[in-house]
Amino acid sequence: MTALKKAIRDVPDFPRPGILFRDIAPLLRDHFGETIGAMDALLSDGEWKEIDAVAGIESRGFILGAALAVLRGKGFVPVRKQGKLPPPVVDVAYELEYGSGILEMQRGNGRIVLVDDVLATGGTMTAAANLCERAGYQLKALVALLDLAIVPDYAWRNLRLRAAINY
Amino acid sequence: MTALKKAIRDVPDFPRPGILFRDIAPLLRDHFGETIGAMDALLSDGEWKEIDAVAGIESRGFILGAALAVLRGKGFVPVRKQGKLPPPVVDVAYELEYGSGILEMQRGNGRIVLVDDVLATGGTMTAAANLCERAGYQLKALVALLDLAIVPDYAWRNLRLRAAINY
Repeated sequence: MTALKKAIRDVPDFPRPGILFRDIAPLLRDHFGETIGAMDALLSDGEWKEIDAVAGIESRGFILGAALAVLRGKGFVPVRKQGKLPPPVVDVAYELEYGSGILEMQRGNGRIVLVDDVLATGGTMTAAANLCERAGYQLKALVALLDLAIVPDYAWRNLRLRAAINY
Repeated sequence: MTALKKAIRDVPDFPRPGILFRDIAPLLRDHFGETIGAMDALLSDGEWKEIDAVAGIESRGFILGAALAVLRGKGFVPVRKQGKLPPPVVDVAYELEYGSGILEMQRGNGRIVLVDDVLATGGTMTAAANLCERAGYQLKALVALLDLAIVPDYAWRNLRLRAAINY
């Protein structure tokens, strides 16, 4: 984990003054397999057997979620920003560390793990988790690459977040 | 290829009247492994050995590119929409079937394959290919999931597009 953490580049004042941006691009370029391996290891083989698909939150959750899905032979389900998915969709409003928006998802079913890159305030993860449930999925786990530890012991219902790299 | 093509849902008049949207969400959910396998097979083992990383174009190119990268043990490099990557970045303007924008990338080096979901007019692919070169990468192949055949025999320089599903 320390080696992976070292590959993250801290960028002060991006995208706005006062925000410390954690740039995961060097990690994805130079340590992608290890990164996905570390996220994969957050779920046991037994847990993976009970999961049907991986849902990823646009956009960086797509990178991590899709890689996890193909590694485990699972389907991939996108949680997208407003207006990207053709109708019919289910939607939810959410608040971010900087900004707000609407997430959309197509209806489906089965047991999924929800994946995003960074947990900051938890606003996006909570909204996406509610959306997965409303879309018809059964949520079995929440996984992030980075937990910035702004919210101690973040959980949705009884599901505690699992992160590969903790600050 | 026919089985994969059948899983694509055609949505008329999305996101604008007159546009026939090819919805790949059912393909990603129900046939993700086969889809990535079909894209992987567009490059031979020998070609893959000469590639250092996979570049994916935001957002659906992230899903496909990241899955290909992890499958082949390569790094992943994001080609992003404006304002998402921290500085310094290289950028390029591009035109779409509907709309226009700016793509950005961090500088790097090595041999890459560029991946997107759909080739329509080729505007995004051409812009991203130029951007990869200007960012310092050596482009070895262009791969898409779908070629809508709007541009016959699309190529960038001497690199002809390879698509898993052709219309």
